[in-house]
Amino acid sequence: MAFNELYQYSLISALMDGVASHGTPIARVLEHGDLGLGTFRCMDGEMIVVDGEAYQIKADGSAVHVDPETTVTPFAAVTRFRATATRKAAVSGMAGLEELLNSIFPKSRNHFLAVRMDGAFKKINSRSVAGQLKPREGMVDVCSRQTIKTFEAVKGTIAGFRCPAYAMGLNVVGDHFHFITEDRQRGGHILLASGFETDGDVEIEAAQLSKFYLELPTEDDEFDSATLKLQAQGIKKVME
Amino acid sequence: MAFNELYQYSLISALMDGVASHGTPIARVLEHGDLGLGTFRCMDGEMIVVDGEAYQIKADGSAVHVDPETTVTPFAAVTRFRATATRKAAVSGMAGLEELLNSIFPKSRNHFLAVRMDGAFKKINSRSVAGQLKPREGMVDVCSRQTIKTFEAVKGTIAGFRCPAYAMGLNVVGDHFHFITEDRQRGGHILLASGFETDGDVEIEAAQLSKFYLELPTEDDEFDSATLKLQAQGIKKVME
Repeated sequence: MAFNELYQYSLISALMDGVASHGTPIARVLEHGDLGLGTFRCMDGEMIVVDGEAYQIKADGSAVHVDPETTVTPFAAVTRFRATATRKAAVSGMAGLEELLNSIFPKSRNHFLAVRMDGAFKKINSRSVAGQLKPREGMVDVCSRQTIKTFEAVKGTIAGFRCPAYAMGLNVVGDHFHFITEDRQRGGHILLASGFETDGDVEIEAAQLSKFYLELPTEDDEFDSATLKLQAQGIKKVME
Repeated sequence: MAFNELYQYSLISALMDGVASHGTPIARVLEHGDLGLGTFRCMDGEMIVVDGEAYQIKADGSAVHVDPETTVTPFAAVTRFRATATRKAAVSGMAGLEELLNSIFPKSRNHFLAVRMDGAFKKINSRSVAGQLKPREGMVDVCSRQTIKTFEAVKGTIAGFRCPAYAMGLNVVGDHFHFITEDRQRGGHILLASGFETDGDVEIEAAQLSKFYLELPTEDDEFDSATLKLQAQGIKKVME
């Protein structure tokens, strides 16, 4: 794929329905992009992709580099990222980031954005999950057992996407970011409500994505039999 | 693109919002597929793509071959079609086709289908539209002035897609087919309620599509400023 196109495997609605037993090798996902996020089989942890490397963030907040050949993901979104806008700025929380992104991309509300932030953070509130207790357990239930970690005075990288309103059900509408420390040892899914606060200026890179390439699971009975009803409230809930 | 991937330019929600002043050259659409449907600038007519050729069906039901280099579409969906299933069967109406497709593709409700039918039809109820009266006029208003044509004892080709429920807003959920006569001189959008009836067996070709490639308009102020709210009821209405 070209730069700044969004590749996605499966649907957030499928995770909501608990479709997570199978997936695609992460090596195949990385063919389509070098920055992004996702999860793992049975929703066992948060995935972040940075510089073409995929990391698994476990329920205790620890991160491990994964072997892309032998590890499978039931949901992932990545882009071959090339920033079209860079800023050095202090940002407080998701609201602050939203404001900054709107000022950089005033005409992009109906497009996707990819965002990467590198630098020092005063505080980051993030969560991870330990996975399904049984096949087909839905994401709301999995996330009801999430563990929250607060990182303070930490350097690292935030990566993720802003998706337009009409993408609800395909992906998460609005901001969705994962975090990993500079040493790539800890991280998580950034909680929208409490978010993060930078320690002075950080490096913010972003790009508008206007091509969306969705690959659906095939030969996957869980996916084929799922109802995939739109669960907008549920999706919002698991992002908080 | 490979065979049996769905390429789409813009969103049905954008048409609902009246985003139809600009678009992409049809030549660019045809690079991605040889079978499909769409519309034209200002929603001036129904588009059908058959065997890599695009036709414009005007409000009076007449069809003209369009020059893909000089003609622009604000919304189109095509696939490089290679049937994975073929049947010779008599089909009565959209319900009959739905039943047949479900029997051929029992596990495809969460995937897209491309369908082509060739043969003799006892009757086809179709419509076309004369386009917007002003920029940003929405599709519900455009279609409120649709003209309906009933073709009887006619040979021709039906082409279109079945989209899964979660695609509502991106495209039309369920069946969406356009028709053109064998001599490529007349046609229209097949009305879901009254539909069509074959005259004995026709040739039905279909394929499951599990990759969806969405290209959003860029440098298009109409698209960028549209609200693109989900208008599920409106979309159903304009398909009837």
